Amino acid sequence: MDQQKIQIFDTTLRDGEQVPGCKLNTAEKVAVAARLEALGVDVIEAGFPISSPGDFESVVEIAKVVKHATVCGLSRAVEKDIITAAEALEKAKRPRIHTGIGTSESHIQYKLRTTQEKVVERAVAAVKLAKKYVEDVEFYAEDAGRTDNEFLAYVCEQAVKAGATVLNIPDTTGYCLPSEYGAKIKYLQDNVKGVENVILSTHCHNDLGMATANSIAGVVNGARQIECTINGIGERAGNTALEEVVMVMRQHPDLLKYTDIDTKQLNAISRYVSDTMRVPVQPNKAIVGANAFAHSSGIHQDGVIKKRETYEIIDPLDVGVDHSSIILTARSGRAALAYRLKNLGYELTRDELDVVYPEFLKVADSLKEVHDDDLHRIAEVKHKVAV
Amino acid sequence: MDQQKIQIFDTTLRDGEQVPGCKLNTAEKVAVAARLEALGVDVIEAGFPISSPGDFESVVEIAKVVKHATVCGLSRAVEKDIITAAEALEKAKRPRIHTGIGTSESHIQYKLRTTQEKVVERAVAAVKLAKKYVEDVEFYAEDAGRTDNEFLAYVCEQAVKAGATVLNIPDTTGYCLPSEYGAKIKYLQDNVKGVENVILSTHCHNDLGMATANSIAGVVNGARQIECTINGIGERAGNTALEEVVMVMRQHPDLLKYTDIDTKQLNAISRYVSDTMRVPVQPNKAIVGANAFAHSSGIHQDGVIKKRETYEIIDPLDVGVDHSSIILTARSGRAALAYRLKNLGYELTRDELDVVYPEFLKVADSLKEVHDDDLHRIAEVKHKVAV
Repeated sequence: MDQQKIQIFDTTLRDGEQVPGCKLNTAEKVAVAARLEALGVDVIEAGFPISSPGDFESVVEIAKVVKHATVCGLSRAVEKDIITAAEALEKAKRPRIHTGIGTSESHIQYKLRTTQEKVVERAVAAVKLAKKYVEDVEFYAEDAGRTDNEFLAYVCEQAVKAGATVLNIPDTTGYCLPSEYGAKIKYLQDNVKGVENVILSTHCHNDLGMATANSIAGVVNGARQIECTINGIGERAGNTALEEVVMVMRQHPDLLKYTDIDTKQLNAISRYVSDTMRVPVQPNKAIVGANAFAHSSGIHQDGVIKKRETYEIIDPLDVGVDHSSIILTARSGRAALAYRLKNLGYELTRDELDVVYPEFLKVADSLKEVHDDDLHRIAEVKHKVAV
Repeated sequence: MDQQKIQIFDTTLRDGEQVPGCKLNTAEKVAVAARLEALGVDVIEAGFPISSPGDFESVVEIAKVVKHATVCGLSRAVEKDIITAAEALEKAKRPRIHTGIGTSESHIQYKLRTTQEKVVERAVAAVKLAKKYVEDVEFYAEDAGRTDNEFLAYVCEQAVKAGATVLNIPDTTGYCLPSEYGAKIKYLQDNVKGVENVILSTHCHNDLGMATANSIAGVVNGARQIECTINGIGERAGNTALEEVVMVMRQHPDLLKYTDIDTKQLNAISRYVSDTMRVPVQPNKAIVGANAFAHSSGIHQDGVIKKRETYEIIDPLDVGVDHSSIILTARSGRAALAYRLKNLGYELTRDELDVVYPEFLKVADSLKEVHDDDLHRIAEVKHKVAV
């Protein structure tokens, strides 16, 4: 069966930048956009032009330099937002306006203080206005995750009729379970007239730690675009992490989905975004954390030394990491010690190892990690065997 | 319908501590164990006694101080491992020996270099030996995530016959999709004779970012214990994060599962473990990251000011965080500016706000965050209205 292409919509520069303390200037944003294009993303959400003069300028400059990817600007379902987004995108080779409105009861009643009917009217008017400026209009139903499916399908259908080319179904508060979110995408796939001519898009947040699983449940049920950010950065607990969804699809060929991402760049772009936006990545972050390919327990080290796949499902080279690491701690066994000693030029016999290993454990129990200089010292103990 | 209790098996001190650079001494481990007991975990995996003298001592000391929780020690399916674990647990009020062996083709062929028959023999012998010392024996089928379900069910059934009280089904390499992992637990629930008398346990790793979703898929399909760590720390990309699975079950009462965790302690214990084990938590970590309840975009701030639930599914107080934060940046709107100015004692009219807001945006475009001292200066601009 043919594999289906999933579009990667990167919103590092829009939703990702909505992080306290990580504001970028225009030159920095343009540089990030260039790296994203080189990585192979299909869509770059460059900013929210109405929100500030700095954001407007950034979208203008990104639109000028991006060659192949679609450049997208965010707007509310508000006339001046859409016009400003269209102005900012004027120089883009493939411009997309992203517009929409809250559709959940909570958003309609408390935030917008309006009715379902008015929301549909505003949605339709926004899409139609955006359509005057660009062919490619993405509609978002904010808080779709907590929106009743029947009403959501109705709003989506009206947006499609008004000319939307992409329907974005955000789990704005990061609330859904994968089974729920998948069922929601399936409901829209089955119930929105004209859905076969547009692209359904996932946009998940990580408040309960399930953004990646939710996005995958979305594409399994018919979505063809995933919105995500490098390192999963974003407001609160952040967005879906680009590197995670891309690697899930790559490591599970049975899903029959692929992306155009050059995975060998994932580690480098993760560091670049972390440094530029000043948002640290924790060592145990999936795929791009400093320890993602480090083994310190004895059982695992032994397994990896015998055959890497025993404890590693991803070849580190595939995501741009040089090698997996065998880190010596008090949990390391004889096999790991022998392996690291061999790398340092000490070929120990079994008897020698029996003498050296307890010495190693003594050192390891007092240190966090045992480094090469400690090992040279420890290796000298082997001579006790001969005595 | 009645809610079902899910046991929380914390392995911060065993699998969590298998992180390069985070080795704790015995006193630190005892202190963490005391905090875990106060938090309300059901089982504390205190260490791997055979692995080093330091680890042995820690298990001994933890076993002495823990009052109510089960204290568990890890072992391979190896005689001396099991005897050493039993010795270390001698003083525990509720001791549990955790023993097991690799069951996947990869583990049997490349790591253990043996056959399925021998693996079953060793599994049965290990459980029987452990059973001589303690009543409560947990059997793990290492790499169960990649083990053929039929063989896995067979091994599990033999372990139950030999006296196992808990069956741990680890996704050792963090490979499974939630649908797969859930189906695996369901298969065991349906096919292991005697399974109704034991507890099925999830043990997931986060290599593809889906450990939380996989653990939840496990309990939905019949597992009654989740193995996890504070902050999701652990080797490579880490383990299932305790705070995430606990809050998923709490925020989704429709799952009909509950735990005995006192969620108000989650934020404090996260910081304590991060500091003690020297493993940083990234700002966008779900539940316990510094930004987990911080709002910086204008649209979200406006919503939260009107009604917190618009953009927040968890009340920060429920996890021990004082308040959600409205952080002023270039993305903040008039509502957020007015809200923060009001907190500083400036009640601005609409006209005054029209004058002050563009001034605020100018400042915000050049700064990452706008703090209170900037706000005092900005507020003075309101007098331009009167001119």
